[in-house]
Amino acid sequence: FDRALPGSINLGLGEPDLPTPDVIRKEAARIVVEEQNGYTQHAGLPSLRERIASDYRFLEGKTERVIVTAGSQEALYLTLMTLVDVGDEVLLPDPGFVAYPTIVRMAGGTPIFYSLPAGNDFEFDAEDFRRRLSPRTKVVVCISPSNPTGRTLSNEDLRAMAAALEGTGVHVISDEIYIELYYTHEKPSTISDFYERTIVIGGLSKSMSMTGWRLGWLCGDESVIKSALVLHGYVTTCASTVSQKAALASWSDEAERAREEIRRTFRERRDHLLSIIESELGLRAISPRGAFYTMVDVSAYGDSMSVAERMLEQRVITVPGSAFGTEGEGFLRVSFCADREVLDEGVRRMNEALKG
Amino acid sequence: FDRALPGSINLGLGEPDLPTPDVIRKEAARIVVEEQNGYTQHAGLPSLRERIASDYRFLEGKTERVIVTAGSQEALYLTLMTLVDVGDEVLLPDPGFVAYPTIVRMAGGTPIFYSLPAGNDFEFDAEDFRRRLSPRTKVVVCISPSNPTGRTLSNEDLRAMAAALEGTGVHVISDEIYIELYYTHEKPSTISDFYERTIVIGGLSKSMSMTGWRLGWLCGDESVIKSALVLHGYVTTCASTVSQKAALASWSDEAERAREEIRRTFRERRDHLLSIIESELGLRAISPRGAFYTMVDVSAYGDSMSVAERMLEQRVITVPGSAFGTEGEGFLRVSFCADREVLDEGVRRMNEALKG
Repeated sequence: FDRALPGSINLGLGEPDLPTPDVIRKEAARIVVEEQNGYTQHAGLPSLRERIASDYRFLEGKTERVIVTAGSQEALYLTLMTLVDVGDEVLLPDPGFVAYPTIVRMAGGTPIFYSLPAGNDFEFDAEDFRRRLSPRTKVVVCISPSNPTGRTLSNEDLRAMAAALEGTGVHVISDEIYIELYYTHEKPSTISDFYERTIVIGGLSKSMSMTGWRLGWLCGDESVIKSALVLHGYVTTCASTVSQKAALASWSDEAERAREEIRRTFRERRDHLLSIIESELGLRAISPRGAFYTMVDVSAYGDSMSVAERMLEQRVITVPGSAFGTEGEGFLRVSFCADREVLDEGVRRMNEALKG
Repeated sequence: FDRALPGSINLGLGEPDLPTPDVIRKEAARIVVEEQNGYTQHAGLPSLRERIASDYRFLEGKTERVIVTAGSQEALYLTLMTLVDVGDEVLLPDPGFVAYPTIVRMAGGTPIFYSLPAGNDFEFDAEDFRRRLSPRTKVVVCISPSNPTGRTLSNEDLRAMAAALEGTGVHVISDEIYIELYYTHEKPSTISDFYERTIVIGGLSKSMSMTGWRLGWLCGDESVIKSALVLHGYVTTCASTVSQKAALASWSDEAERAREEIRRTFRERRDHLLSIIESELGLRAISPRGAFYTMVDVSAYGDSMSVAERMLEQRVITVPGSAFGTEGEGFLRVSFCADREVLDEGVRRMNEALKG
């Protein structure tokens, strides 16, 4: 990003360009003027924890199984630091979000990768997953919809994962930050409906275009939550009170309509982007079922890093797939956090970079 | 706190009851409506980092030596996690903020305590400080004005501390979260003007009544800042963008007037509280030069925990001094984050508890 030329088009972004819905903005404006915003309880506003708990069947309405955090990034950090000890193995998706292996190493753990094979459109491979499990496996991280691929785990995938873990005592961290951004008929399923020892990580950053508000959560297993809460108190005390109160508005009907509109917009962009990648570039791109990324197969043009460099020279920013693991090599992650005209121009420049 | 009876008066609070100044609230209302609030750079908004850098002589205006955090709590966590390795000794004030030894232990370090002796009104004791230094000392934490005592370090204290550390390579963490809340003629000095290897921790929570906004910072030594920034990215990504933008207004003239008004209010309360503690209770209380706490000597009535329990039964919340270390034993921390009438009633109840 730092070496991008002036006037570059950014298709590398991991943040929605759509505005935060009005229902949130108006409520936030009222809150900062009318209310005093002191500390909340470390775990967050009880009313907010209640709404969050109501979204997850496996919590059985227990608000004490929810912690509100400074974005889902803090939730991920707290959960991994709480669960992983020196020498533990942690199973991570390949390709997957770059923060996972780094935090695992910070905690003294060893990242082990299970493949979401590029050759099979980055679908879950239950057999490979089972092979990576060992007696030292302490934690599994899964993410659906996925960053970087936009693929989701099917009920069959989730059942296979749960079956492989049954009786092992392993904890699953289910990163569901993209779960409200789906382009399927129904919201993707969550492993928490199939496997008990799950910690779900969620937040409003992506689905409500609230990245800068730093509002996330983790919820699940009571003993893990209890330990994570102590750490949370020492790390940030509590999430922003303004963001917490404004977040309450995202369980309203108006917010639900805003989410539907956001989904509709991203779905149209997705379809458009896939279509021009095929028609203009003649390249294979993964069809995402959620999130706002696709993986474009550029293996015919060299390794992903050097292709991304050539793109940069043509003033279009993408992320080399190798950043996400070995299965990502040969692909570029291209996001559709941009409107139709920008996507058109971005793909035009990608074409120049490839033909140049 | 959890066992407080209904209708209790809270003199145990560590958070100002005064409202966030209008200049901040109005600006925040404008920001949430008019602007999109996406991620900032991990280190924070460049304009905000510039203002913060301008407040500290030792930074020489270098914004890259500043990180904006989710409150000063995150700044403290990042700094200790960055500086302390397994086996390191960390010198902490006794009495002092309870989070210091806990985070030091999380990092694998050993807390060693230097005395701020109760017998000398919790003043800095240079000789004791020098005695606690060892070849394994990696970090020193100092806080001025102090939580829990409200005492400040004088220029003479700071010079003595710097002289003791000269040539050792030890880093000082200077917790300056209360530095704008002073009741002396001039703002208290900072060790950063006397000792080079200093990391300053600051924020707006206390001085601008913005606890729930989670806006703090750390600044200092370039190599430490660089490492802390990497950790910060994985812990919270960035501080709330709304809070960061609103914070910019706290360098305005209007904000400076608000700070003066806040200081005046707290000074009056301090004087009133000290006077009624003497006249109504006949007890010795430490005269704070900053922050919003005093330490009340209740040693004639038993240990601080049991006296605090008796206060709870009379529906007044205080914090036993033993929570802050061995030098705090025999004292209660009483805060003046409450108006005159509440302080009067609180002291009346304290009197009942003591005479009962």
